[in-house]
Amino acid sequence: MSLDFGPATALSCRECGARYPLGPNFACVECFGPLEAAYDFGDVKRSDIESGPASIWRYRSLLPVPADVASKPNMNPGWTPLVKAGNLGRALGLKSLYVKDDSGNPTHSFKDRVVAIAVEAARNFGFHTLSCSSTGNLAGAVTAAAARAGLDACVFIPAGLEQAKIAMARVFGGRLIGIEGTYDEVNRFCSELIGDPMGDKWGFVNVNLRPYYAEGSKTLAYEIAEQLGWRLPEQIVIPIASGSQLTKIDKGFKELIRLGLVDDAPYKVFGAQALGCSPVSAAYKAGHDVVQPVKPDTIAKSLAIGNPADGPYVLDIARRTGGAVEDVTDAEIVAAIKLLASTEGIFAETAGGVTVGVLKKLVETGQLDPEAETVVLNTGDGLKTLDAVAADAQPTAVIRPSLDAFRATV
Amino acid sequence: MSLDFGPATALSCRECGARYPLGPNFACVECFGPLEAAYDFGDVKRSDIESGPASIWRYRSLLPVPADVASKPNMNPGWTPLVKAGNLGRALGLKSLYVKDDSGNPTHSFKDRVVAIAVEAARNFGFHTLSCSSTGNLAGAVTAAAARAGLDACVFIPAGLEQAKIAMARVFGGRLIGIEGTYDEVNRFCSELIGDPMGDKWGFVNVNLRPYYAEGSKTLAYEIAEQLGWRLPEQIVIPIASGSQLTKIDKGFKELIRLGLVDDAPYKVFGAQALGCSPVSAAYKAGHDVVQPVKPDTIAKSLAIGNPADGPYVLDIARRTGGAVEDVTDAEIVAAIKLLASTEGIFAETAGGVTVGVLKKLVETGQLDPEAETVVLNTGDGLKTLDAVAADAQPTAVIRPSLDAFRATV
Repeated sequence: MSLDFGPATALSCRECGARYPLGPNFACVECFGPLEAAYDFGDVKRSDIESGPASIWRYRSLLPVPADVASKPNMNPGWTPLVKAGNLGRALGLKSLYVKDDSGNPTHSFKDRVVAIAVEAARNFGFHTLSCSSTGNLAGAVTAAAARAGLDACVFIPAGLEQAKIAMARVFGGRLIGIEGTYDEVNRFCSELIGDPMGDKWGFVNVNLRPYYAEGSKTLAYEIAEQLGWRLPEQIVIPIASGSQLTKIDKGFKELIRLGLVDDAPYKVFGAQALGCSPVSAAYKAGHDVVQPVKPDTIAKSLAIGNPADGPYVLDIARRTGGAVEDVTDAEIVAAIKLLASTEGIFAETAGGVTVGVLKKLVETGQLDPEAETVVLNTGDGLKTLDAVAADAQPTAVIRPSLDAFRATV
Repeated sequence: MSLDFGPATALSCRECGARYPLGPNFACVECFGPLEAAYDFGDVKRSDIESGPASIWRYRSLLPVPADVASKPNMNPGWTPLVKAGNLGRALGLKSLYVKDDSGNPTHSFKDRVVAIAVEAARNFGFHTLSCSSTGNLAGAVTAAAARAGLDACVFIPAGLEQAKIAMARVFGGRLIGIEGTYDEVNRFCSELIGDPMGDKWGFVNVNLRPYYAEGSKTLAYEIAEQLGWRLPEQIVIPIASGSQLTKIDKGFKELIRLGLVDDAPYKVFGAQALGCSPVSAAYKAGHDVVQPVKPDTIAKSLAIGNPADGPYVLDIARRTGGAVEDVTDAEIVAAIKLLASTEGIFAETAGGVTVGVLKKLVETGQLDPEAETVVLNTGDGLKTLDAVAADAQPTAVIRPSLDAFRATV
């Protein structure tokens, strides 16, 4: 079997720098640090990217995928709108605000980006089954991508997720296994399963394919920069679950600078958590480098990872760039979902309520510069977390079809 | 007030051809026929379109909108994927099949296309409130677009719609009025309201702004042709609610031929209805030119228009192009949703189950050529009609996080 990962040439340990050949491995045998893709990019031009498809594959020369990736059956996610959010900006007192809205992806969350890269890795390694531990969005993204790619799927979720996420994870076929426990317990179970013969030839997108999968989040950085006219935003607010997305967006920005695709300008990275699962925010505020695991209790289930693997890296990036990590209550999340919807017509899932709520709090507490160009991420879709707005999900009035009845409501 | 509708120069009656200046009018005063936009297109080049934005505004020179439309706050819908559906094609015995998947639009239905055009018309006419009668998807599209555009919204739906559609219509703000009655009764009520002082300065997107609004559906035709490499499909399967979408896709194809943007090749148009609301299909099968209204009873609520205004035009187009109109049961709709999901990773709402179910039936009954290139439309999102798949929306198993427990399920 000859592997083709395009510009990716090796895996390297994030902690000790040890290098490994490209394979379905995720931890350094020297120091147990996480492995990530290393590249030899060569010369990458804006014009080559601009003439590419309206999907993440326009950045294929910056990702661990073969050059012909767009011609294979896959979900072609990405190239989602960067919405100039004038109304929300005015409401929050921000001069220049954009919402990067990933709800338009095929299964309506940013997870389609990372899964699309993992599917290519699974093909490369000859895996027949695509799997994952998931807080919901990922399960739907994996089962959909497996259906399109002609792979089997078996995905694992905490029992008791939102009904819409369960339905979406099930409708694409494959097996959906509910685990009695938290996401962190599901994740540990998957790590065990990889070592068992039952899990042989299985690609767990966020475990043994993680070094490839995680790179998909870099495309958010690339798209934001290109959509701003090849420029980095001055400030960006990113949700934190495992923390991987935030670290990869930072990695993407740095790559663009190194390749000369954008000017080397400073940017500040802000992390957003729900108070009910805020281990990184707590560590940030306490001045710690270590993240203490917590047991999640929040409506933002897609961010409910109590033991975030990339927490320490997030702390480092927030501090290095002059950003911060902040958290909001469930009530603030709901209010922020409604604020975003009523100002910009974007219906975010609870994770989007977290980022917009944190954005508001950062402005109010003076941690974020209201004059600087700011991007806030919405990574999911309100239709998947309807419970958050259920209290108001009724008509303002129900009437007979008559003008008199309507007049009485006015 | 100076009006700017770009290439649109007048309204013309579809029945008698009488011409009127551009205004918020929808019926011919001579013959009561429906009015539609008439154009002076000038020279439109493929290259101008191809260099436009990744939204319906790339076709602004073919729509009743000003040239600078993309710079105003709007939802920028369209340019949704045309998915090469090899798996579904093989399952149905079709040689070359594509799914035009409109679930990626901002509020996850094709309605964002038509509403975006109506918003421009509302701006042109100085209306302060955006309104509509809706079976659900349109209400969400209107309230979202109003929020983004800074307009008020007051929308009308039949009481008893799907919860997700009610939530989505409400979260963007504005007033959501439930009417005790069918969609057809909601529609009649809105026609009354337009004549009342309460409805003054209101733009009802699908009533007094209908000649503009309806043109938005042409963009489906333009996108399909461009995404096929500037070629018309040989066969296309389109859902029928009012029938407007189908007639406008036909209009769009004819415009592309007339402007020399595609070759003048024959295409067959197939209409799809749910058996529980199949007045057009019934007329087609009976050989009638007139459509007898029915009282809808189907899970495909977004297509549940019992008195479809454009029914006779649909019959004419299906017959003229050599297509057909067919219908499927609710059980066939559910089966088709699952078939599309498990083969292509696309989660359609019930309307998508109708088109895919009808496609299957057309092949099985020999009405559609399995060798000819075929496009089937998915116009909405499965997350809005979860009830259709609720019976299966459970994990395949719920277990403790242990290998033994998992082994027992295999």
